[in-house]
Amino acid sequence: MNAEIIAVGSELLLGQIENSNAAYLSKELTTLGINVYHHITVGDNPDRLQAAVESAAERADLLIFTGGLGPTKDDLTKETVAKVTGAPLIYDDETEQRILAYYAKRGQTMTVNNRKQALILEGADVFPNDHGMACGMSLKTDKTQWIMLPGPPKELQPMVEDYLMPYLRRELYTNEKIESKILRFFDIGESKIAEELDDLIENQTNPTIAPLASEGEIKIRLTVKGDDPAENGRLLEEMKTEVLSRIGKYFYGEGEKDLRELVNDRLRASNQTIASAESLTGGLFAETLTSLSGASDVFPGGVVCYSNAVKENVLSVPRKLLDEHGAVSGACAARLAENVRKLMDVDIGISFTGVAGPDPLEGHEPGVVFMAISQIDDTTVIPLNLAGSRRNISGRTVKYGCFHLLKILEKQREKDG
Amino acid sequence: MNAEIIAVGSELLLGQIENSNAAYLSKELTTLGINVYHHITVGDNPDRLQAAVESAAERADLLIFTGGLGPTKDDLTKETVAKVTGAPLIYDDETEQRILAYYAKRGQTMTVNNRKQALILEGADVFPNDHGMACGMSLKTDKTQWIMLPGPPKELQPMVEDYLMPYLRRELYTNEKIESKILRFFDIGESKIAEELDDLIENQTNPTIAPLASEGEIKIRLTVKGDDPAENGRLLEEMKTEVLSRIGKYFYGEGEKDLRELVNDRLRASNQTIASAESLTGGLFAETLTSLSGASDVFPGGVVCYSNAVKENVLSVPRKLLDEHGAVSGACAARLAENVRKLMDVDIGISFTGVAGPDPLEGHEPGVVFMAISQIDDTTVIPLNLAGSRRNISGRTVKYGCFHLLKILEKQREKDG
Repeated sequence: MNAEIIAVGSELLLGQIENSNAAYLSKELTTLGINVYHHITVGDNPDRLQAAVESAAERADLLIFTGGLGPTKDDLTKETVAKVTGAPLIYDDETEQRILAYYAKRGQTMTVNNRKQALILEGADVFPNDHGMACGMSLKTDKTQWIMLPGPPKELQPMVEDYLMPYLRRELYTNEKIESKILRFFDIGESKIAEELDDLIENQTNPTIAPLASEGEIKIRLTVKGDDPAENGRLLEEMKTEVLSRIGKYFYGEGEKDLRELVNDRLRASNQTIASAESLTGGLFAETLTSLSGASDVFPGGVVCYSNAVKENVLSVPRKLLDEHGAVSGACAARLAENVRKLMDVDIGISFTGVAGPDPLEGHEPGVVFMAISQIDDTTVIPLNLAGSRRNISGRTVKYGCFHLLKILEKQREKDG
Repeated sequence: MNAEIIAVGSELLLGQIENSNAAYLSKELTTLGINVYHHITVGDNPDRLQAAVESAAERADLLIFTGGLGPTKDDLTKETVAKVTGAPLIYDDETEQRILAYYAKRGQTMTVNNRKQALILEGADVFPNDHGMACGMSLKTDKTQWIMLPGPPKELQPMVEDYLMPYLRRELYTNEKIESKILRFFDIGESKIAEELDDLIENQTNPTIAPLASEGEIKIRLTVKGDDPAENGRLLEEMKTEVLSRIGKYFYGEGEKDLRELVNDRLRASNQTIASAESLTGGLFAETLTSLSGASDVFPGGVVCYSNAVKENVLSVPRKLLDEHGAVSGACAARLAENVRKLMDVDIGISFTGVAGPDPLEGHEPGVVFMAISQIDDTTVIPLNLAGSRRNISGRTVKYGCFHLLKILEKQREKDG
């Protein structure tokens, strides 16, 4: 099966946004053994769009469109596919109800042009949009499978994960089972991964092995195909053991949950609460934990102590300590973690202080970071030395915080259990 | 003149890297008034590459290739263009000298396959590569201009800036100037923009008008072309006035700066400081402001008061108020904003409380938000009713916070000035 990904939208051709969907979809399709031979981007012009669709349909079996499903008359994807395939556009009740509900929730009524988003191609299977209004769909004609997805990545990605991939798996493989395992690593660079796993990646057959880096975290997805579930499981386990024998010290977990979700889970499981004192990270740790629903059980709050006055007046760091050691110091980090633990009456206090840049601070270069984790009987200070932009340093500091919290909670669990 | 950007490389089709060059080049070409009608990505397969080149040459006057100029036998861009145009490949002395120098500098000798990188199309203008080995080039044939650039962005971007853009400017324009203006809006949906500006967008000529939505903010870019700078300025101003007469109430600023940057600027200009008390938003407001360098001048800190205990014990919200009105209330928001202003000894306190979801809280549905802004002589409570995911509600709440802060600071400036 060979596929072509067609992005629709003049904003892409003007360079106003990057087409990140093409790479994302290609990577997903590759895991199903589908070859992608072309990416195309075309604007909201009816004639050029139609010409692009017609020539793509001559080349590929599977056409995946991204974008052009919105409410304006510039959104032409469905209309063009309808024209080329001859499938009429009809209103889909379920989609219309979803759109009406979306508006009702905001106390608004649906505008006329938004009703256009409830149009689907007759005979198509519909993928609901759980993060926006335009539904996705799949239509089969004689020679070609037509798939249409919304353009915004935050709508497209969950739709691909939750609906399109299971759908394609069902379509493509009737007997063969596909199984995946995700291994998660932190504090290891991409080139280090390449170095350590090069031969495995080069010679991959079944399972396949796909590393995916994002902001300091690395996921490695192992995917196995085969009729026999037991054999599949054995092959996955074997490859996992091989990978961990090489880079096990950077491993922190398996499955869909990321660092912050695992921290949340472990805190909840051990019935502990945490509070944060954030200078360098300016609230990012708190925001990271509270972005999970149910965070209130483990995280009652924190203090963003950007200035020394707040460190002193709200978190009771003695002026003398600040004068002697500076705010960018292990001593300050330790005191912040201890005091926020007491102030918020929690089990664990965590603190971050350091230099986010671009300018040096107290004689330290950007990237100098001190982090502390305080429990009733022990406070650990962890110094870090990071490179990168302001946002980068802050983001990675929070991840180091989660990583070390996990290690501490893990040790505790082993001791207790 | 209409252009097509052709990325060459199987790694793009496997999703191993994103094609950021297409958006970058499009943006650059747009400033020259060149229309880009297609982006194409094709792999390192000779037949498919040749077919893609031939059909692109039928559509466009200007073809820009990125990638496929390397030393391996998979790098086929020059070879394919040579085949299609009939221009022979010859060794370019200057490029060969540069490559030899590159190796000499490293104490190595040039390998045979690297000599391939010194091949150029006969008659082409050469763009030197100051950050790598593969040179770029431009070849003119009867109907088409062929431009070839290296794939890695860190080689391509300086080559575009230093050589390609000046080259195209010389080729295209002797006199014409291009000028842009960006207008920024908040709290207006894409379909509302479409409704209000439809006729302007439909009939755009000079200036052009391009709306671009991202997470609740909308930018509109007006671009004018012409020989006379004064006339250009007049046309831009005229279009701006027309746009604002329709959607002026959503307008918050002009230029490259976004909401948080403008809040930061205005606070700094008026010499005021701000602190935040965040329940719903869990630290996102603090993180948003502190992600800017120099934030410490205007933002000494804040409290994340996720639990009622922290609202009561750290921010002194009376238990009675919480019992009577609940934490999700205008009364609580007002008290939080006032008290964090006093606690942190700042000019302005801002607070956010509400329900991020997915579950209701205190009988309120997700999306019910109360925000308050407190100054020494006045506290304003602003209720919001938002829809969307947890992260969405939190993100938009912070933007509403910035938007209302801007309005208040603006009014103050008018009163004072």
